[in-house]
Amino acid sequence: MTALHYRRPEESDHIRVVEAIPVWWKMPPDAAPSRLLPRLFFQHFADTSILVEADDGRLAAFLIGFRSSSRPETAYIHFVGVAPALQRLGVARDLYERFFAMMRVQGCTRVDAITGPINRRSQSFHRALGFTVGGDTEVDGVLAYLDYDGPGEHRVTFTRSL
Amino acid sequence: MTALHYRRPEESDHIRVVEAIPVWWKMPPDAAPSRLLPRLFFQHFADTSILVEADDGRLAAFLIGFRSSSRPETAYIHFVGVAPALQRLGVARDLYERFFAMMRVQGCTRVDAITGPINRRSQSFHRALGFTVGGDTEVDGVLAYLDYDGPGEHRVTFTRSL
Repeated sequence: MTALHYRRPEESDHIRVVEAIPVWWKMPPDAAPSRLLPRLFFQHFADTSILVEADDGRLAAFLIGFRSSSRPETAYIHFVGVAPALQRLGVARDLYERFFAMMRVQGCTRVDAITGPINRRSQSFHRALGFTVGGDTEVDGVLAYLDYDGPGEHRVTFTRSL
Repeated sequence: MTALHYRRPEESDHIRVVEAIPVWWKMPPDAAPSRLLPRLFFQHFADTSILVEADDGRLAAFLIGFRSSSRPETAYIHFVGVAPALQRLGVARDLYERFFAMMRVQGCTRVDAITGPINRRSQSFHRALGFTVGGDTEVDGVLAYLDYDGPGEHRVTFTRSL
């Protein structure tokens, strides 16, 4: 296994990340993942986000997160990805733990995240990391919040103390 | 003209705003504006955002903005809308000036925003407010940055000192 190098993302990393998402997630070409992860996250939340590269410079993983401005005790993880070849090796867990440590230093006592009802793997991952899973209506076989992120955008919520 | 009431948005305002956007902008039903304005903005940036209601409680306008975490001298305006019946009355300008004042108090010296090349009205509005308009490639008849927000997502940038 190649050594992994952790650093803060730069604005210029945005295009690499949005191009990786549909490949890593096997999304249809019109899924427009950049709508979920616009450049603003790389401009304004770089200081609390993490980008991981392999020895050869290729993108290996990333975590985009920030501290809430209106709920300063809360940290929020917006988007996390790990290259398929590097999955199941603890990289995502390591990214989460690095983010938790950063946010504890800033005084956060809670971390939140969300996923879609269909994303069982994300739900298992968050449970394994000690997150409480939230939802009140069965959607695709799991409890989720209906229209949480707008019409038709149902979400499972995760929260964990820090 | 009805009196307008300004306040901070609450998380529960998210659904009203995402339902208003396609009506106010006359978007197709599948435009999914909630992708551009997920609930997280109402959870985590409420303290620097503004919601305006008419006397009867109906949504009149909103501005969603925040101070950059990694560029603390920069404020960012993410999304602004005014109900069609209230347009051309200075409501958007008033929202911008209230946001500028909030951000100056926090120590910001610069404010940024973006729009699509096709949105001429937004471009005129920002010019009139003293923003410098950025772009390097002609797209739909104006200068814009190609693929600024991901593949096919060209944007015109605005920046202004505070």
